[in-house]
Amino acid sequence: MNKTNTGNFFEDFSLGQEIRHATPRTITQGDASLYLALFGSRFAVTCAEPFAQGLGYRTTPIDDLLAFHVVFGKTVPDISLNAVANLGYADCRFVLPVYAGDTLTTTSTVIGLKQNSNGKTGTVYVRSTGTNQNAEIVIDYVRWVMVRKGNLDAPAPDVVVPDLPDRVDPASLAVDQVLNGGNFDPVLSGSNHFFSDYSVGEKIDHVDGVTIEEAEHMTATRLYQNTAKVHFNQFSEKDGRFGRRLMYGGHVISLARAISFNGLANAFSIAAINGGRHVAPCFAGDTVFAWSEVLEVADTNNPTIGALRLRTIATKDHPCADFPAELEKGYEEGVVLDLDYWALIPKR
Amino acid sequence: MNKTNTGNFFEDFSLGQEIRHATPRTITQGDASLYLALFGSRFAVTCAEPFAQGLGYRTTPIDDLLAFHVVFGKTVPDISLNAVANLGYADCRFVLPVYAGDTLTTTSTVIGLKQNSNGKTGTVYVRSTGTNQNAEIVIDYVRWVMVRKGNLDAPAPDVVVPDLPDRVDPASLAVDQVLNGGNFDPVLSGSNHFFSDYSVGEKIDHVDGVTIEEAEHMTATRLYQNTAKVHFNQFSEKDGRFGRRLMYGGHVISLARAISFNGLANAFSIAAINGGRHVAPCFAGDTVFAWSEVLEVADTNNPTIGALRLRTIATKDHPCADFPAELEKGYEEGVVLDLDYWALIPKR
Amino acid sequence: MNKTNTGNFFEDFSLGQEIRHATPRTITQGDASLYLALFGSRFAVTCAEPFAQGLGYRTTPIDDLLAFHVVFGKTVPDISLNAVANLGYADCRFVLPVYAGDTLTTTSTVIGLKQNSNGKTGTVYVRSTGTNQNAEIVIDYVRWVMVRKGNLDAPAPDVVVPDLPDRVDPASLAVDQVLNGGNFDPVLSGSNHFFSDYSVGEKIDHVDGVTIEEAEHMTATRLYQNTAKVHFNQFSEKDGRFGRRLMYGGHVISLARAISFNGLANAFSIAAINGGRHVAPCFAGDTVFAWSEVLEVADTNNPTIGALRLRTIATKDHPCADFPAELEKGYEEGVVLDLDYWALIPKR
Repeated sequence: MNKTNTGNFFEDFSLGQEIRHATPRTITQGDASLYLALFGSRFAVTCAEPFAQGLGYRTTPIDDLLAFHVVFGKTVPDISLNAVANLGYADCRFVLPVYAGDTLTTTSTVIGLKQNSNGKTGTVYVRSTGTNQNAEIVIDYVRWVMVRKGNLDAPAPDVVVPDLPDRVDPASLAVDQVLNGGNFDPVLSGSNHFFSDYSVGEKIDHVDGVTIEEAEHMTATRLYQNTAKVHFNQFSEKDGRFGRRLMYGGHVISLARAISFNGLANAFSIAAINGGRHVAPCFAGDTVFAWSEVLEVADTNNPTIGALRLRTIATKDHPCADFPAELEKGYEEGVVLDLDYWALIPKR
Repeated sequence: MNKTNTGNFFEDFSLGQEIRHATPRTITQGDASLYLALFGSRFAVTCAEPFAQGLGYRTTPIDDLLAFHVVFGKTVPDISLNAVANLGYADCRFVLPVYAGDTLTTTSTVIGLKQNSNGKTGTVYVRSTGTNQNAEIVIDYVRWVMVRKGNLDAPAPDVVVPDLPDRVDPASLAVDQVLNGGNFDPVLSGSNHFFSDYSVGEKIDHVDGVTIEEAEHMTATRLYQNTAKVHFNQFSEKDGRFGRRLMYGGHVISLARAISFNGLANAFSIAAINGGRHVAPCFAGDTVFAWSEVLEVADTNNPTIGALRLRTIATKDHPCADFPAELEKGYEEGVVLDLDYWALIPKR
Repeated sequence: MNKTNTGNFFEDFSLGQEIRHATPRTITQGDASLYLALFGSRFAVTCAEPFAQGLGYRTTPIDDLLAFHVVFGKTVPDISLNAVANLGYADCRFVLPVYAGDTLTTTSTVIGLKQNSNGKTGTVYVRSTGTNQNAEIVIDYVRWVMVRKGNLDAPAPDVVVPDLPDRVDPASLAVDQVLNGGNFDPVLSGSNHFFSDYSVGEKIDHVDGVTIEEAEHMTATRLYQNTAKVHFNQFSEKDGRFGRRLMYGGHVISLARAISFNGLANAFSIAAINGGRHVAPCFAGDTVFAWSEVLEVADTNNPTIGALRLRTIATKDHPCADFPAELEKGYEEGVVLDLDYWALIPKR
């Protein structure tokens, strides 16, 4: 009996199937330090306990994206080890804060299947749910990936494509009533710009660029226990599609978020990710830049806190003063990420 | 009086000499995070507090090899600063778990000496013992190194070569009675393969390969405060034997252990290292693979937990599907490590 | 209204102006682990809780320089984003130990201004003060930087150049009476050399050399949330003055301090920095060496602890056996740092 994990192939998935993923993970202050040092985030809520407590958190929350990457990483050995492409995300909600000491596990449910006409691959839709040690949901999202068939003769399943929202309804965002945006100190946070200072259509160049090293993206990706081989194995990747190790797409998301501090310093938390596209691959040596557009502004169920729907575009080796984005066909040269999310920001 | 440490030369060691090594070290959750991120280990016991407690640990234990490397690192300035070669390990026992907050110190006793016939070097055998803040032994091992003489005229000591066991007797392995292998959840651990599923002679290719960067092996080696110069100083190593920085041998051991999760996910702890050989040097840019053979299976003093004696071979730039190993003379191309150890695994 | 920080230009500073810097930072054991792994420091006080407590600390203090870099990093977005050169430091005092769990904030006061005759730049002198969550001062220092004018037509301010001490008066060093140097164990600390063993004029070659990687200096500099662009952005720096990313000067200071363990193992804490000069830039790939000269020896207000005034010179790709230093004009080839500081060391 084979003891090594060969991952699931398209025909191994069935509608409604529930997969509990391995290796629960207790998040620690050490993880938070390492994440901070890898991305350089400066949002005061995740950096300073008194600031977080002043806003109403029990203590410093773990960066939303660190929690996301850990929840996501667990799904890789079961969902995407034989993936050809990561096709998309939707309906990703950050339901509860994660604190150092919390233990995260992830469970996925297959909510859609569609074999491709070539008969060699198919799209698998899963809803993945990260829970803490009290069985409370902390993060919940849908992703879909194109997975190879292992046995080309396996019959095609019935086509089921889930109905996914274009964006998370801001009225449904989880914003704890205990948070009091009125306590947010703009001197300590680094910005005087609050909810009402942002308007729909506004574009912000986040200016700063950060060059990525192999040691950095591999260390981050291992921190999340994401085992996708393309990130780590130069011996095999030298003969692969790109001739080199591919960076985990989530690394670019974290970089873009950290860079976005410059212009969005008070957008202290990500409440939901509406969708995301990895437009082009990133590699060590690339310098990542980012800019954002405000797509929507919305109230939340907490009267002291608003939500900005942001589209953050990240590029490589292309500063963003000219706001590079989509062309009629495809994207401008250098665009690597097109992310649509809701961020929370205090009202003044 | 010279204030910098020039290390001990062969003639500075005497039989029975006890050396207390410097810099006690309090292990923290930060060390555990960094170790995890550097190696990507996924064994649930060291990743999740509830899982560890379910098995019977007080809290998440520190990875056995992290503790080993810290205990080992302290010996370098006194034992091997003038070493020509690290010749071997034997009788290495992991006696007690180490937890975040424990402070480790190391003491070594010289148990053997043998000057080489060339009169320029000699072999020093030491038993090194790592203890915690309660003076309890946590790790104990023998290693022998070839050390240069500083004064070639110094007389040769009497030859004493210690009698070392080929392997640690499994009946003597330290397995706490409080551990209950019956509580081991195979879904969370990532494998359904327990003690009885492994048989002597079985070979497992661990499949995954990991490429190493300079920043990674140096960061890890500094984490253990191992000061061997060859790992850090490119200015001098450019003119040295390899023309480049040599990776700490223990880095390969940790990589091989992390990679071995794929096939040995339930082998939750290393109870003993019977012996180890660094067959060839490793450098930044190498991609490390590993495979294991089951050499023995044995009961332990805990009826819920068995022991597998494993031989894990690590290679560089050589995937292990063909189980590369020893030839009649030497090893197959690419083999870098030949490690013989006892791992604990629950019985079902 | 521009939401991204463009930093202050010379004409934006005014005498007596107080600037509270953003992003308070709770220091954790994770930060300490990462700092240790990046620099490999072995001073027992910062490595082992029982050792620190034996000396009289509440628990393991955070490395003085980690605290300094965090306090310093906060000032960058406001003080030196438009700096042309970092000109100097003076009167830097380490007033209170920092412990894991402490939250640091920094405030700067403009204490001097002098426009350059070219009308394009000017020197800004600031006193920056790092405080903990109890509003106690932990670190206090003066630095001066040359900053670009944004509006060349802005009038020159009155010239005010503060009177700065050549060195901190050792009688004023903050040494807690509760510390008892008599408890210092030379076996655990790694050296038998105490205060009285060092004499003025003595030179110590610290021997060891450490090569730096891009991933290491960027990770360290992000850990401090120092956002100076030259350290991170290869895309812009390729066209810059050096064609590559410049290492944060503080990285060399930390390396030199860690290397100085070999010869100064009992100099357990930095009490003050009298001045420092970054003589030449450092880049990834450089191998850093260091040596020290004892400039002064002094009693402190704690009878069990003395102070050594040390001049530590760091070099790149130049071992320090010949004590490279200043020439009549400039410095010897390879010198990168000339640092003057007070270190505390127990009396025997």
